[in-house]
Amino acid sequence: MDGVSIARTPEPPYTAVIFTSLRTPGDQGYARMAARMEELARLQPGFLGIESAREGLGITVSYWSDDAAAAAWKQVHEHVVAQDRGREVWYADYEVRVATVTRAYGARDGERG
Amino acid sequence: MDGVSIARTPEPPYTAVIFTSLRTPGDQGYARMAARMEELARLQPGFLGIESAREGLGITVSYWSDDAAAAAWKQVHEHVVAQDRGREVWYADYEVRVATVTRAYGARDGERG
Repeated sequence: MDGVSIARTPEPPYTAVIFTSLRTPGDQGYARMAARMEELARLQPGFLGIESAREGLGITVSYWSDDAAAAAWKQVHEHVVAQDRGREVWYADYEVRVATVTRAYGARDGERG
Repeated sequence: MDGVSIARTPEPPYTAVIFTSLRTPGDQGYARMAARMEELARLQPGFLGIESAREGLGITVSYWSDDAAAAAWKQVHEHVVAQDRGREVWYADYEVRVATVTRAYGARDGERG
């Protein structure tokens, strides 16, 4: 897992998938799955980066070249299995938001947007 | 602070501001500012919700009715002061991404998107 650094994304536009979740108690294979999904996401066409943090609430933002790349990742078999198990076992609540990043700026390059 | 629950946002489209950061060591007034900024954000026109977590990496996603509402919040005086101090003192690195949420689905309502 490497979601602990700020993703080095290109100039917008690109796609962000914001996945917010509340866990059920206990691990139940969650940590292993999460590491595997991040590893697998990095291999997909159009993957740009991933950022994640959990502090009660979990937030994972994955970045993709476009909506089609994000949609394709949603359909990858091993990921579909994980999504099903997430709904059944790991998540008490979750929300997925697919968004188009239109502006970005940061500490590295001063104000771009 | 109440960024520990999943924001109850309306049907898309709406605007998400994804703020990712790495802190400098020590508090230096950070916790108080963060609580105040969340309190202040909730009072702004077009505010829809906020979610945040920090685990090494900090991720805060605020949701707004549209880009204009998000841009207006960026210009609120007390927030401008906090942004300046953030660049100078609190953040070792950060990135802000402004995005348009186009699809959303979650546990509460089955698949919408």
